[in-house]
Amino acid sequence: MTGFRTVVVGTGFIGPVHVEALGRAGVQVAGVVGSSPEKSIAASQRLGLPADYKTLDDVLADPTVDCVHLTTPNRYHFDQAKAVLQARKHVVCEKPLAMNSTESAELVRIARDSGRAAAVAYNIRFYPLCHEAAARVRNDSLGSLLHVTGSYVQDWLLKPTDFNWRVLAADGGELRAVADIGTHWLDLIQFISGRRITSVCADLRTVYPTRQRPTGPVQTYSGDTPADVATEPVEITTEDCGAIMLRFADGANGCLWVSQTTAGKKNCLRFELAGSKQSLTWDSQSPNALQLGNRDRPNESLVRDPAAMEPTAAAISSYPGGHNEGFPDTFKQLFRSFYGAIEKGILSDPAPYPTFLDGHHEILLCEAILKSHRQQRWVDVASA
Amino acid sequence: MTGFRTVVVGTGFIGPVHVEALGRAGVQVAGVVGSSPEKSIAASQRLGLPADYKTLDDVLADPTVDCVHLTTPNRYHFDQAKAVLQARKHVVCEKPLAMNSTESAELVRIARDSGRAAAVAYNIRFYPLCHEAAARVRNDSLGSLLHVTGSYVQDWLLKPTDFNWRVLAADGGELRAVADIGTHWLDLIQFISGRRITSVCADLRTVYPTRQRPTGPVQTYSGDTPADVATEPVEITTEDCGAIMLRFADGANGCLWVSQTTAGKKNCLRFELAGSKQSLTWDSQSPNALQLGNRDRPNESLVRDPAAMEPTAAAISSYPGGHNEGFPDTFKQLFRSFYGAIEKGILSDPAPYPTFLDGHHEILLCEAILKSHRQQRWVDVASA
Amino acid sequence: MTGFRTVVVGTGFIGPVHVEALGRAGVQVAGVVGSSPEKSIAASQRLGLPADYKTLDDVLADPTVDCVHLTTPNRYHFDQAKAVLQARKHVVCEKPLAMNSTESAELVRIARDSGRAAAVAYNIRFYPLCHEAAARVRNDSLGSLLHVTGSYVQDWLLKPTDFNWRVLAADGGELRAVADIGTHWLDLIQFISGRRITSVCADLRTVYPTRQRPTGPVQTYSGDTPADVATEPVEITTEDCGAIMLRFADGANGCLWVSQTTAGKKNCLRFELAGSKQSLTWDSQSPNALQLGNRDRPNESLVRDPAAMEPTAAAISSYPGGHNEGFPDTFKQLFRSFYGAIEKGILSDPAPYPTFLDGHHEILLCEAILKSHRQQRWVDVASA
Amino acid sequence: MTGFRTVVVGTGFIGPVHVEALGRAGVQVAGVVGSSPEKSIAASQRLGLPADYKTLDDVLADPTVDCVHLTTPNRYHFDQAKAVLQARKHVVCEKPLAMNSTESAELVRIARDSGRAAAVAYNIRFYPLCHEAAARVRNDSLGSLLHVTGSYVQDWLLKPTDFNWRVLAADGGELRAVADIGTHWLDLIQFISGRRITSVCADLRTVYPTRQRPTGPVQTYSGDTPADVATEPVEITTEDCGAIMLRFADGANGCLWVSQTTAGKKNCLRFELAGSKQSLTWDSQSPNALQLGNRDRPNESLVRDPAAMEPTAAAISSYPGGHNEGFPDTFKQLFRSFYGAIEKGILSDPAPYPTFLDGHHEILLCEAILKSHRQQRWVDVASA
Repeated sequence: MTGFRTVVVGTGFIGPVHVEALGRAGVQVAGVVGSSPEKSIAASQRLGLPADYKTLDDVLADPTVDCVHLTTPNRYHFDQAKAVLQARKHVVCEKPLAMNSTESAELVRIARDSGRAAAVAYNIRFYPLCHEAAARVRNDSLGSLLHVTGSYVQDWLLKPTDFNWRVLAADGGELRAVADIGTHWLDLIQFISGRRITSVCADLRTVYPTRQRPTGPVQTYSGDTPADVATEPVEITTEDCGAIMLRFADGANGCLWVSQTTAGKKNCLRFELAGSKQSLTWDSQSPNALQLGNRDRPNESLVRDPAAMEPTAAAISSYPGGHNEGFPDTFKQLFRSFYGAIEKGILSDPAPYPTFLDGHHEILLCEAILKSHRQQRWVDVASA
Repeated sequence: MTGFRTVVVGTGFIGPVHVEALGRAGVQVAGVVGSSPEKSIAASQRLGLPADYKTLDDVLADPTVDCVHLTTPNRYHFDQAKAVLQARKHVVCEKPLAMNSTESAELVRIARDSGRAAAVAYNIRFYPLCHEAAARVRNDSLGSLLHVTGSYVQDWLLKPTDFNWRVLAADGGELRAVADIGTHWLDLIQFISGRRITSVCADLRTVYPTRQRPTGPVQTYSGDTPADVATEPVEITTEDCGAIMLRFADGANGCLWVSQTTAGKKNCLRFELAGSKQSLTWDSQSPNALQLGNRDRPNESLVRDPAAMEPTAAAISSYPGGHNEGFPDTFKQLFRSFYGAIEKGILSDPAPYPTFLDGHHEILLCEAILKSHRQQRWVDVASA
Repeated sequence: MTGFRTVVVGTGFIGPVHVEALGRAGVQVAGVVGSSPEKSIAASQRLGLPADYKTLDDVLADPTVDCVHLTTPNRYHFDQAKAVLQARKHVVCEKPLAMNSTESAELVRIARDSGRAAAVAYNIRFYPLCHEAAARVRNDSLGSLLHVTGSYVQDWLLKPTDFNWRVLAADGGELRAVADIGTHWLDLIQFISGRRITSVCADLRTVYPTRQRPTGPVQTYSGDTPADVATEPVEITTEDCGAIMLRFADGANGCLWVSQTTAGKKNCLRFELAGSKQSLTWDSQSPNALQLGNRDRPNESLVRDPAAMEPTAAAISSYPGGHNEGFPDTFKQLFRSFYGAIEKGILSDPAPYPTFLDGHHEILLCEAILKSHRQQRWVDVASA
Repeated sequence: MTGFRTVVVGTGFIGPVHVEALGRAGVQVAGVVGSSPEKSIAASQRLGLPADYKTLDDVLADPTVDCVHLTTPNRYHFDQAKAVLQARKHVVCEKPLAMNSTESAELVRIARDSGRAAAVAYNIRFYPLCHEAAARVRNDSLGSLLHVTGSYVQDWLLKPTDFNWRVLAADGGELRAVADIGTHWLDLIQFISGRRITSVCADLRTVYPTRQRPTGPVQTYSGDTPADVATEPVEITTEDCGAIMLRFADGANGCLWVSQTTAGKKNCLRFELAGSKQSLTWDSQSPNALQLGNRDRPNESLVRDPAAMEPTAAAISSYPGGHNEGFPDTFKQLFRSFYGAIEKGILSDPAPYPTFLDGHHEILLCEAILKSHRQQRWVDVASA
């Protein structure tokens, strides 16, 4: 158990994921806060936590709270992150960091001035074999990076009757599939490759310009809207799918496909990094194996195994080879890295966790993607 | 957080796994106990726990402790489980339950008389898709069960220089690969199929009759013995591998292969249950998918997904489809089931967790296997 | 054995593939013709065929020859196909049909006027499960087509020392990876989806602007240039890799990635067709299984099996389920379809084989891709 | 084209497979012979062959025929193979070579005395990666052979209404699943491992003691008996499935599972050969990849590729890496090896193809398996 006391704000799908992972990382969870005092109390009790905080203000007023995790809808991130940092508490914010780059740039400044640690929850980096891939790029196992391709596809918005707050531009932002899942891939690939994407050319598509919104509340990943629920048509401007061609700082190129309308894919992120000596292929559906492609000898399959991985990857893997880890373990490892860094006094870039600067770069990248799509041409990504 | 307070005895590979999983299951871990007071204190501190208990006796004397988990070497299980139950505490014991069926039979009696819940940690049942397989046998998706085959193979004892206390009959028991890993498969298949194995015909083999024992201590899954470690030859009588042909109560048949000398397999349990309508195939290396084999239509792959599974399987799955769960999640779910059952007053068979009676049956089965191997003939399994 | 007599022109990698497949399709191979009379004789003898034809002219002068297969370098296709048709013989031409659309348009006219059958050897269509995919699009198993993505990647040109005539624009054409392998994917997807690609946006890249050319001859797929072979640097303008974003006639979108520099991929074509009811995924490395992705029930794996496939797919599959077919079988089935159609009098579009019109459309598509790349913008594909 | 002229006897599933493969191997097929003159003529015409031979006697009387392939029901093999050899023609016989070891021993003697080549069509050896596995055992890549396990499973006899002559002991022999498919595995493993199986302990099972026999004819792999076909119950004594524990000449051990009642497995042979340095895993459903299991470095996947394989494997692989070969290719390669050996004057053991001695050994092995099953004990395999 570390000495940290943390509060989680947000009680949807991902809030409880943070709560469990904080416990595993040895961080004391002091409570959870929902969108109303009643929800705060109900959620705290449901998760077996004290119900001492009814609102974020309660949390910020308590000097015994060291850190706040924000798992709220995207449009609240800016105000809440700002408030947390100004209360001189560490902060972990779900992605995307903000609704636009004006906000995210300001958050980077505030974080830098605050003397507090500020992370964005790009958890996928914390699959040990993604750290392994990054280590292998750096130790030149791959040779020069030639190109990177991949996709992030899901099927939970396949039907025009599928609905969630994320499909509305006003609540989730003007980009949806790109901002919700594409940004995970883009962050991951830049983390692994160690270089920035500098230009993009995107073509996005709203498969269903109208969706049926239930008049009552809906949960992420809740499956079909029941047949007897009343719905109303609502216009959709956010994209269901799209392609993005990419150029990297050093000349490498690539492309990304994102979709939330691919039947049979529940949550599937894949990448193929091609180097001049070796390629790396990974699929989040089988996260415990990394495929190494070789030209002149058999391809290899590296199984997640602390005894077989590079030190940075072994450090974020708790179980021996053959004992699969999964999605919940990525949050545990992200938080272990985050709080471990704070203990060591690492409060800003470069950091072993995704920082607000990384989150800001993702916002700039998303803005370039949206601009590229609207203007149907290549667009440079602004410098963070 | 439930109201339970638990202490874990044993600080090797699996003890800390219990500690983490108990936390996730909402059970308060009051401490850990090692093989000496010093080890107890060191391990408790390492795991961020209070160091209030130096020995098992300290634990048993504390009326605020509700339950004890035993993750000690096999030869201590009997005495320790007996003591815990006689102290009127619930107990979770790692497999195998005891060194022989005289002991395990007595533990069954003691458990029954104690009015306390007593589980054996057959965690593999708690992969959600293993519960799903059991539900599908029961709802007749498979039709009649025809035959069951499979294997449990590892490679951590591949070399004659690999060593661990488990290879010594005096410490681990006369059977090794069968008792360490085969028993997981045998328990799992009987759980899934809902029927007992009644006769066995085994052929076991000690590939290396002599192994090199380091003069210092060794850890499970610790990889190669370093070249500069002093070793001494020690005679090995326990099996490295073997086949077991099986007959089930209702006429189904099958076979199992176990090995700790299969290069490249870190920890791989596979089964193929063939029914008259459908077959089920599963591999612990890809635990988030269950393959359904069909004669007259395409084969299917059922991905772990609470929205898609039978209720008993959905109940032990915490994350949505596409968000992989793994080995650590099985212990969380086992403990949630165990403590949840206690809260409901379910303290003996039939129970939603593997009971001491199940553990006793496994010991009887292992004894039949050993007898069959020694006499090179079919042997009936004694009734539990 | 049908009554047809055929000659194959070209003795490189693919010529002998045609020879073997013609035999399996029951077509008599009357000889092969190489780039010199000596090569014609040597190749005929090597393949156990009569050596009656030293040049294409010899073949065209022989009225007993019914059909000619052209497997020569791309730049010869136009003249040779024209000559064959003008000699009133049927023709099968390897892809690409010609070096530009002026040529391919003329070939379409000549073919139409000739009263002879004219096919382009897009063999990949003739994997039975690719026909199955096409049938499933047509019978509405997929619902509306939403988007199509995929790739065709190889590694045989990974190193700057890898060389083949195809890398030279003068011999293979200005496009290389797209024209050699991308065109297979583009033809296949249009065949399966039953709709034309109407606009493209491409970004191509020559990873190695200079390659080392051996001063002697080199074979396709010949592996590393031996270290003791003399080489000279040659400037390369054809692309090693690239992305192409796609729009289809009816609004579906998608993207394609091609590369000949992906270590570990020998010859890997993959597609993911997403429909509103089901998705289809296929990988040429495992051509005997088609993955069906479902939203609300388990995903399926359809194994190639005449007893389980749609009639059009079963018709091009010679072996029962579980008896894998492969690359050589696709040519056998293509030729069975081609000669079978001739027997039935089907000499022009629509035809059960890829026609010169299909080949012409591919050329137009490649020209649009090249123009799009050069102008870095979306370009419409000209109508065939 | 070689100078050989061959006739195929038998017109069921496998006869035409021989015909096509002979053509690909450059052998002239002079005709096929069925179970009646009418069937001989019909089958020859269907396959585009001359219809010069109405019976096997016609064939034996023709001195221009060099070789005869026997693809008839098992009970005819002995008499026909004997007659062919006595007519001083080479012979290729489908497995099993005969109905019992008295017959097969005599055939071995007759073959030896005949001065003619005599092969049993164990085609699975001729998957290039199976030859590769054999080469890797011999060059010590695996180290010492420790144990071998695997299975051969199908589902075409899953239902009690599935019927074929093979299920009747009188027509197919007293063993069925073992003799039809198990024998392929047993031959393959002995070929790969280079050592004989010396003792067996088997447990077989007839899942359906009664099956429904259609009153008309039935084809192998013909799928469900149509509902409107008249049937009659017939008692079945041959096994549907079973396990066989194995011991090899040098102490290695293992086990095999065979079944024709495993839903979803059309035709699936798998093996796992474990050596002291490496293991080899192969699955006939994905025959173009061989998995290499390693203890201390990543596992490898060797793709069939003449450029990457050992010389003996490359010699029987016609297509480059990434261009899948399959089931029909194994017969082509077997026949190329057989006729190539004859051209080189290799007419008896040791030979590069499976000889009658290999076929005889398989019969002895099957007899030991049957005896072991009946006596429920270990039985030594008689020496060939």
